[in-house]
Amino acid sequence: MHCVTGFTHSDMRQINTALLFFLLILSCNALGLKPQLLGRHTAQTNSQHTSVSYKTFYFDQQIDHFGFLENGTFKQRYLLNDQHWHKEGGPILFYTGNEGDITWFCNNTGFMWDAAEELGALLVFAEHRYYGESMPFGEESYSNAKYLNYLTSEQALADFAVLIKALKKTLPGAQKSSVIAIGGSYGGMLAAWLRMKYPSAVVGALAASAPIWQFIVPCGEFYKVVTHDFTISGTNCSSNIRMSWAAIDRVSATGEGLQWLSQEFGLCNPLKTPDEVYGFKAWLQETWVNLAMVDYPYEANFLQPLPAWPVKVVCKNLNFNTGVSDKQLLNGISQAVRVYYNYTGDAVCLNTSQTATGNLGFLGWFYQSCTEMVMPMCTDGVADMFEPQPWNFQAFSDECYNQFGVRPREDWAEIVYGGRNISAHSNIIFSNGNLDPWMSGGVTRSLSESLVAIMIDGGAHHLDLRYNSEFDPESVIKTRALEVRYFKQWIKQAATTQ
Amino acid sequence: MHCVTGFTHSDMRQINTALLFFLLILSCNALGLKPQLLGRHTAQTNSQHTSVSYKTFYFDQQIDHFGFLENGTFKQRYLLNDQHWHKEGGPILFYTGNEGDITWFCNNTGFMWDAAEELGALLVFAEHRYYGESMPFGEESYSNAKYLNYLTSEQALADFAVLIKALKKTLPGAQKSSVIAIGGSYGGMLAAWLRMKYPSAVVGALAASAPIWQFIVPCGEFYKVVTHDFTISGTNCSSNIRMSWAAIDRVSATGEGLQWLSQEFGLCNPLKTPDEVYGFKAWLQETWVNLAMVDYPYEANFLQPLPAWPVKVVCKNLNFNTGVSDKQLLNGISQAVRVYYNYTGDAVCLNTSQTATGNLGFLGWFYQSCTEMVMPMCTDGVADMFEPQPWNFQAFSDECYNQFGVRPREDWAEIVYGGRNISAHSNIIFSNGNLDPWMSGGVTRSLSESLVAIMIDGGAHHLDLRYNSEFDPESVIKTRALEVRYFKQWIKQAATTQ
Repeated sequence: MHCVTGFTHSDMRQINTALLFFLLILSCNALGLKPQLLGRHTAQTNSQHTSVSYKTFYFDQQIDHFGFLENGTFKQRYLLNDQHWHKEGGPILFYTGNEGDITWFCNNTGFMWDAAEELGALLVFAEHRYYGESMPFGEESYSNAKYLNYLTSEQALADFAVLIKALKKTLPGAQKSSVIAIGGSYGGMLAAWLRMKYPSAVVGALAASAPIWQFIVPCGEFYKVVTHDFTISGTNCSSNIRMSWAAIDRVSATGEGLQWLSQEFGLCNPLKTPDEVYGFKAWLQETWVNLAMVDYPYEANFLQPLPAWPVKVVCKNLNFNTGVSDKQLLNGISQAVRVYYNYTGDAVCLNTSQTATGNLGFLGWFYQSCTEMVMPMCTDGVADMFEPQPWNFQAFSDECYNQFGVRPREDWAEIVYGGRNISAHSNIIFSNGNLDPWMSGGVTRSLSESLVAIMIDGGAHHLDLRYNSEFDPESVIKTRALEVRYFKQWIKQAATTQ
Repeated sequence: MHCVTGFTHSDMRQINTALLFFLLILSCNALGLKPQLLGRHTAQTNSQHTSVSYKTFYFDQQIDHFGFLENGTFKQRYLLNDQHWHKEGGPILFYTGNEGDITWFCNNTGFMWDAAEELGALLVFAEHRYYGESMPFGEESYSNAKYLNYLTSEQALADFAVLIKALKKTLPGAQKSSVIAIGGSYGGMLAAWLRMKYPSAVVGALAASAPIWQFIVPCGEFYKVVTHDFTISGTNCSSNIRMSWAAIDRVSATGEGLQWLSQEFGLCNPLKTPDEVYGFKAWLQETWVNLAMVDYPYEANFLQPLPAWPVKVVCKNLNFNTGVSDKQLLNGISQAVRVYYNYTGDAVCLNTSQTATGNLGFLGWFYQSCTEMVMPMCTDGVADMFEPQPWNFQAFSDECYNQFGVRPREDWAEIVYGGRNISAHSNIIFSNGNLDPWMSGGVTRSLSESLVAIMIDGGAHHLDLRYNSEFDPESVIKTRALEVRYFKQWIKQAATTQ
């Protein structure tokens, strides 16, 4: 996950979540989006898989699709691979880029490469405006509210629809190709919405781990799933994490305690004042969320190199019975977080300002959270293992205004994307993993014959979009096969109706 | 129809159509949108029907739904009538206002009032932004390009969706009401698009005489239908009109001829130079188009008071055989236009700067034509009865730029609204009259079981939206009954799926 929470500031306030999505690792820290959204820096990580080959192109997009005064254009980057493409009818698999560098998504969406071979498909990866190289106002794009004004999901969807139209018109052999939208996480939401809003552009969509209802589900659902993952992964695991917050408070109440904590956790930047403990706890919370999201059944390296079933490994350090001392408990916590931050044993110290890949556009996503992507999050410490934190829209809105000069519109996403009432649409697969916290906002039951929900048993965050692996559980093997079967069905259906 | 063609200017140039829609009378003059879009003034007309009663409300709408920098709101006007409403389930018939004063549409959409009684429905008439009283920047709304920037169909659709959501939330008894969008002409396009883009807001739509494909049909189709109406309405009728243009040129080549023409037509402002003849011909062309649109089977008063089947009455003056002299022919033309402009016999003179009601927002529609509502129009004088006039997008674009500082985007409407590929949508009735020129851009064949085309034999422009009349032909009686039957079906369907 990635919640930039401004940990370096002492006046951190309660709540106000901004959720940062990304392809592989999503989540959010419900605590302290305040006062600087950019407080946290991130480390670069690389895909561990064999590199893929593609050609890079740039397409002239309108900066503003919905107004005509701003008539400028910008270069939208997109990547093409046609090695498996059967022209004159072979489909196009179109990745609806989310909030990051498109090459990173391209390198980390192995399912599309595997499926292209089976389907004889052209692969297109389209970058989302304001991320990667696709900057509407170049280096100035993030410099002020005026330039940021065109960073919305609606503009991004229009980019995709316009690009698809242009590709079909200009790419020799693509005129009759059916296009299928594919995306994960926020990209999955965009894939679903592209089919919903521009069904003439795409015959169907795979929305993997796409929490399109996160705007409207009860604010506590997300953290309940995180907690459940820890509850089922080891005896007393979630209850010990729940107890750890008060233990941290008690221990950190003294200067000696702060020093002990810093040493115990091997922090690169030792805690100096009790105020800094808030950020330390937020960093822990973010770590637990990240772990839940990447709780994959095999060794993998996304945010961090991790063992198979990392939450289980973490929980082995957290099986204390009641009566454990604060320091014993916190020793366990420190061992647990090292599973995430030092599985390789290479870490010299732990850096609380780092949790994940640098390929993502944090600032852009915060802007989106502060405008239309308002996903209420809260914790109560009872149904979840975190410190109680209510959802406070007004405080969140005020922070957004301070940061960007804009205020979020709480109801807009539900209105523009239909909320729960989406049964008029068709040809969308909503896949979710039952370990993934984001399934709390996902479509987990089929709504019609062609709005299909697939739950991946033992799956974390869009496991189905990854390359085939010899360690894949049966559930994800079946899911991918089913997804390709739907693709074929949509393509066939389109051939008969057009 | 209403094409403001800048007749008072001498440097009128060829072509560049801006189409002005309105509920009852639509059409366009393919000639001379140049150089002033505002050249023509219009007269106020009143509905002839018994006045209807409604309550007027104002709703705070975002000025910009698709950006967050402009966070201002404006008062959107809407009208309510609940005299027939069966609360707690009774449906809502929602008129998607087009480019004019909503009270005028409210007074001229009798079908909704008749249907409300049968359905126990609440009636809502929502005004389109930038028309009537719904001005985003008050009196300044049209003062510059910056303020006009939020005048788009997408913003209008968002207004409707937001308003519907708010009504269902706040109106006691409306929570479970199914909403059906109804509109005619551009309002019909909006009704269809509202269902296509916001199917969670409305369970279905009646798009009456809605030329949603006028963006992409061959440019000559519209005027072919106009011509056909005159061809079938009297011997030699269209061929005499076709011959009239050259006759006008010949007669007006001399000062004496100009004087004769002005007297013959009883023009309020006599023609003084041959340059002014261009505007005179454009006014005639517009008149023929208007007549085709309002070729209703009974006496009516929309643009002008007219007899039943006015085109037939017009054509009685235009049945000359070949060999007719120029002045004989033009005498016939002058008698013919008097059917339109002086059926009552009250007109002292004919005013070439006036053709229809003043309830419409001409400038707003021209702006929309100059941005996204680009409907190519052309004539060739062979398949139609008009002077040859090719479609010239570049010249049109240049004129728009001169007028508004914006340029039209030729392909956008097709991309955003799907062009011909709309079969993924559902629950839309597309009704058209086979006399209506706008059926050239309409959906005239059913695309699926729930995308239904109804052709009204002998129907002009959205005859079906008018009040029931004892003079209604069988075709429109059946059409209205079928439309209500679909409404009931949609309502029933929604009750079972929600």
